[in-house]
Amino acid sequence: MWEHFFEPRSVAVVGASRNEKKLGYLVVEKLVEAHFEGEIYPINPKLAGKTLLGRKAYARLTEVPGKIDLVVVVIPRDFVLPIIEDCGSKGARSVVIISAGFKEVGEEGAHLEDKILKVARKWGISIIGPNCLGIINAHWNLNASFAPSAPSRGNIAFFSQSGALGTAILDRLRKEGVGISKFISLGNKMDIDEVDVLEMLKDDDETRVILGYLESVGRGRDFMQIAKVTAQAKPLIIIKSGRGEKGKKAASSHTGSLAGQDEAYEVAFRQSGVLRARSFGEALGMIKAFSCQPLMQGNRVALLTNAGGSGILATDACEESSLKVASLGDETKKKLQEKLPAHVSLSNPVDILGDATADRYQLATREILADQGVNGLLVLLAPQAATDPLTVAEVLAREAGTAKPILACFMGYDKVKDAVDLLQSSGIPNYEDPEYAVTALEGMYRYGEWKKRPPGVVKEFGVDDGAVQKILDTSKERGYLEIGGFDALKVIEACGIPVVKSYLARDEEDAVRIGELLEAPLVMKVESPQILHKSEVGGVKVGINKEEITSCFRDMLQRVGKIVGKDSIRGILIQPMVGDGKEVLIGISHDDVFGHMVRFGLGGKYVEVYKDTSVRVAPLTSEEAKEMIDETKYISKLLRGARGEAASDIALVEELLLRLSHLTTHFPQIKEVEANPLVVWKEGGVAIDARLRFQQAERSSYGSP
Amino acid sequence: MWEHFFEPRSVAVVGASRNEKKLGYLVVEKLVEAHFEGEIYPINPKLAGKTLLGRKAYARLTEVPGKIDLVVVVIPRDFVLPIIEDCGSKGARSVVIISAGFKEVGEEGAHLEDKILKVARKWGISIIGPNCLGIINAHWNLNASFAPSAPSRGNIAFFSQSGALGTAILDRLRKEGVGISKFISLGNKMDIDEVDVLEMLKDDDETRVILGYLESVGRGRDFMQIAKVTAQAKPLIIIKSGRGEKGKKAASSHTGSLAGQDEAYEVAFRQSGVLRARSFGEALGMIKAFSCQPLMQGNRVALLTNAGGSGILATDACEESSLKVASLGDETKKKLQEKLPAHVSLSNPVDILGDATADRYQLATREILADQGVNGLLVLLAPQAATDPLTVAEVLAREAGTAKPILACFMGYDKVKDAVDLLQSSGIPNYEDPEYAVTALEGMYRYGEWKKRPPGVVKEFGVDDGAVQKILDTSKERGYLEIGGFDALKVIEACGIPVVKSYLARDEEDAVRIGELLEAPLVMKVESPQILHKSEVGGVKVGINKEEITSCFRDMLQRVGKIVGKDSIRGILIQPMVGDGKEVLIGISHDDVFGHMVRFGLGGKYVEVYKDTSVRVAPLTSEEAKEMIDETKYISKLLRGARGEAASDIALVEELLLRLSHLTTHFPQIKEVEANPLVVWKEGGVAIDARLRFQQAERSSYGSP
Repeated sequence: MWEHFFEPRSVAVVGASRNEKKLGYLVVEKLVEAHFEGEIYPINPKLAGKTLLGRKAYARLTEVPGKIDLVVVVIPRDFVLPIIEDCGSKGARSVVIISAGFKEVGEEGAHLEDKILKVARKWGISIIGPNCLGIINAHWNLNASFAPSAPSRGNIAFFSQSGALGTAILDRLRKEGVGISKFISLGNKMDIDEVDVLEMLKDDDETRVILGYLESVGRGRDFMQIAKVTAQAKPLIIIKSGRGEKGKKAASSHTGSLAGQDEAYEVAFRQSGVLRARSFGEALGMIKAFSCQPLMQGNRVALLTNAGGSGILATDACEESSLKVASLGDETKKKLQEKLPAHVSLSNPVDILGDATADRYQLATREILADQGVNGLLVLLAPQAATDPLTVAEVLAREAGTAKPILACFMGYDKVKDAVDLLQSSGIPNYEDPEYAVTALEGMYRYGEWKKRPPGVVKEFGVDDGAVQKILDTSKERGYLEIGGFDALKVIEACGIPVVKSYLARDEEDAVRIGELLEAPLVMKVESPQILHKSEVGGVKVGINKEEITSCFRDMLQRVGKIVGKDSIRGILIQPMVGDGKEVLIGISHDDVFGHMVRFGLGGKYVEVYKDTSVRVAPLTSEEAKEMIDETKYISKLLRGARGEAASDIALVEELLLRLSHLTTHFPQIKEVEANPLVVWKEGGVAIDARLRFQQAERSSYGSP
Repeated sequence: MWEHFFEPRSVAVVGASRNEKKLGYLVVEKLVEAHFEGEIYPINPKLAGKTLLGRKAYARLTEVPGKIDLVVVVIPRDFVLPIIEDCGSKGARSVVIISAGFKEVGEEGAHLEDKILKVARKWGISIIGPNCLGIINAHWNLNASFAPSAPSRGNIAFFSQSGALGTAILDRLRKEGVGISKFISLGNKMDIDEVDVLEMLKDDDETRVILGYLESVGRGRDFMQIAKVTAQAKPLIIIKSGRGEKGKKAASSHTGSLAGQDEAYEVAFRQSGVLRARSFGEALGMIKAFSCQPLMQGNRVALLTNAGGSGILATDACEESSLKVASLGDETKKKLQEKLPAHVSLSNPVDILGDATADRYQLATREILADQGVNGLLVLLAPQAATDPLTVAEVLAREAGTAKPILACFMGYDKVKDAVDLLQSSGIPNYEDPEYAVTALEGMYRYGEWKKRPPGVVKEFGVDDGAVQKILDTSKERGYLEIGGFDALKVIEACGIPVVKSYLARDEEDAVRIGELLEAPLVMKVESPQILHKSEVGGVKVGINKEEITSCFRDMLQRVGKIVGKDSIRGILIQPMVGDGKEVLIGISHDDVFGHMVRFGLGGKYVEVYKDTSVRVAPLTSEEAKEMIDETKYISKLLRGARGEAASDIALVEELLLRLSHLTTHFPQIKEVEANPLVVWKEGGVAIDARLRFQQAERSSYGSP
């Protein structure tokens, strides 16, 4: 199938036209211009018997004498369906539908897509599009698109959910001298989507780096799986737009797809080794580096400059990234000291001064690259009287080719133009500003780290399935899909999370009896499926002595009953007070695209104020559980012991995250769980409160069918 | 003085040379190339009687027959001093020293600077440099520099502390078609610094926007004062590098100056209306917008696009800035609906579809600009078959010129090149990526807001000067410049900050007597100038009943005494327990460059974990005190009442910040104060603990001499 798309021997263009303004003309023109070596068949009843750009035209696909590998469709949407039937009878199995007016304009268009897909499935036809720009294989002289710029041949594959942005990016790639291998405009992804495309590109020998622009992912879990495999083979950089709420809305309305939460994309990408770029500029910076330089094997960067100012800007950028400005080894310093002028600064950035010659650059480059404490080098140059940029570029081209990446930041324009051209043609990417160079190096470092990390292990835990199922069933019978307090604590207890001793008192006598079982002071909390925030309705009282139980029970029932109605109160939950510890939150949520996610964070009353949480797509590996804790800004520090305090039981928290993650494997119908606060001590900990939401359907709704 | 620098009738170049590689040649060449209309005098004993580039050379300055307005010095540093004497006798009062080898290379160089400055002062000579690139006045055909690119004439003034970076930036400005008015390379700022330069540029008619690159500011308070006045007149954009610790160190070692804390620069710039750019790319984006477009009068931006993807990227960028993606008014929507095709998206971004024509752009632009809810417009375009970029550019050029800014983001390269040229020559800046356009719009908005805000009022408060002085004196006598607990509370009480009732018990009897005066439960804290964190040595006990006072006193004295020595313990501080409230921190610190700063933040034990603070250069206006509270991420929310709680006494916090700020006016020798925790209730609040650091010198050490 992919061969017919990307290495076809013959291409038919349905809707070919002699009108130079029409896409039907442009597509044929691009095919011809790219020197496509196979047959080109313009298809259009009006052109039957005539030629278009020297190629014989046919009225219908079925009239073409030879075999057709690839069909490109550029006719109005209402005529597409019969063409797919024609493709079927003619034996063409790879179709690109450029035509628009489908899902992106509303229901009617979506309906039409369904019909077309049905016919395609019948014949075993694969479709790229509709509403797309087409496809390109620069290594096959194939430009089956109406992209205005034919990019040069190179090793970057690029797929884009937005055709127009695709055009702009192809144009920019040309400007930067970055060549491509394949380009795929995904359009509405009626059939072939990003998952299929990655499946193909991961093994594509002509592709060294993959760039994608996405507004949504359709099959979250499949995407993660294929992205992981792909990223093991080559860097995968994706610009995923629609980050904020408005952007997400704009993306949804643009593509007509469910967009999912940005936070989920962020971590799903990270877990899968995808490098997310925030802008095309950032992506371009990474592409340039990945396409020709080795990876960073650590995070220590050396900076070499002839201008203090540029060195400082680069240092700033490093300090705001995960990179470290490397300290040169004593050996290196000694050698540089011997050979360079006295005022040269050997602390990093290495400043070889305003009168730096190419010799000085060469010497420093060589020594720095040989330093074991350096994982990569950024060479900065500002045009100055004594420094000839071109000679420096020549020198760097000679010194490059070690196992460490060299990036350049020759600043300016006219004065460095020739040097920059030489650098880039020698495989040393140049950046106008140090920031983008540092972002590229950081991408190389992060990608290298991801590749090196051991494959995670998802541990199995015992879950008391019966207990959980019973609670879910009972709750469903009662008509509630949300469970709080008592029952929610029972569910998490069933998957091995320690919870504080909790008894539900139905009446005053019950309460007094329970009081006897527990050590005072006590906590009493109203139990009602209708109350989300108990403390806000006066439904929580702490520090209760045994004598106060009866009056407290009565008061609470009355006060809260007035607000939510006595009938909806199931009773009063009674617990002992729990000793001081750190309050954390552990939970599960569900994303439309990626499914179950595990969350960890600072717990307690002010969760929404601090928003100090981290998240991962479930199921969680032990390494990911550790990362989640480390990633939080505050609670990780508090757990490790701030202000001379002893550390809390972090190992327990890790295990409980894994246990909670595991619960979703047993009970995919559980959509949300939150244990908060979970009080963690030096050793051990207990959940004090919990809530849970589930849905009726027993099967998970995400992933592939 | 400035006239002689920037509008000289005659320029002498000391160190002029026939060697084309030497700066002494380059400087004369640049002067000639720029068509300087006045006299040019090459000075060099070796050239005496000869000519250089057609200009008669002289052995010495004093031999030049005519008057010399400007002297440019490009000789080795050791020969500079006598030249300044020559300038003096010859009556030249404006000197640019390009020569390097001064403060930037160490003590000897700094010493030489001092000597030169002394001679200059004697003669009333002003000096730019040394170790600089020179100066340019494009409107006077004056290029007294060795900057390799002669920039075109325009309205941007640019000063730079880094010569090399200056060169690179001038080169880039040329590329972007941005013309300059004046360029000043500050070099080592031996005499003329950024404060002087702003003094001149603020009134310079040919300058509409000022760009600066700085690694340090010498006179913090003077800088703030002149920056405020300048920013009232025109936008002032500064790239201040050395943001992190390593960057700061690199900046210090590069310029040999004290760099100050980055946080101080950040707020000092903000308080003065300076727009800080993080990179040259960001600065360039702002310059382009400011130089030709009106300001944003609010933060609501409309986005108009022919490509959904670009619109989403722009929306993302807006959402991550302080801008809002505007909602169009019903009236506007109605008009657009009538005139545009059915599938056009009228929610913002306004997507006029892939087949958008220039007419559609025109119509939408006009209606959107007329919408009262829109403060600015970003027009996005991706090259597509039906959209002719050049015609769209023409249309935009016609529609621009209202009171609202229009920025463009025509993406791509070849396909939009002509359109971009037309846009920029019509005063509509274009950006390659939406991000920089949004940053520019945000800069315009922030600057507009700053200009509109009322001049702040610094309130005066009574301070019990006698009480404070006495405590400082006593402490100094005891040999301590740090004061904690009891005395520190007394100091802040003297400036009107409510503090909890606190008594110092010297012995057990004292303690019991004090116990009688207070309501239990009590708090007891060890009082010792040697203990910074009392709780970490077991020096704090809370919830003490009256019966426990004696034993607690004895225990604490013994336990802590073992650690710090009994003699250094002044006694035990006894306070009543304070009712629940929000714990904040208010404080004063001192920055090397900007002097006293006021700090506000989340208080309590975990200040260092949360780091939720805001800061301002003192003295504080009431508006700034409000801003400080709003700016914090968490404590502002807690004070306003989170989770249904009542709001705390924010007005009190504002007042206390002002009072603390005022303390620094009375006692500049106080370098640091911190009241933490200050417990704030619904009404009122009290400081529980405090500490203070002062220095012997009675006078403030920052600012101008």
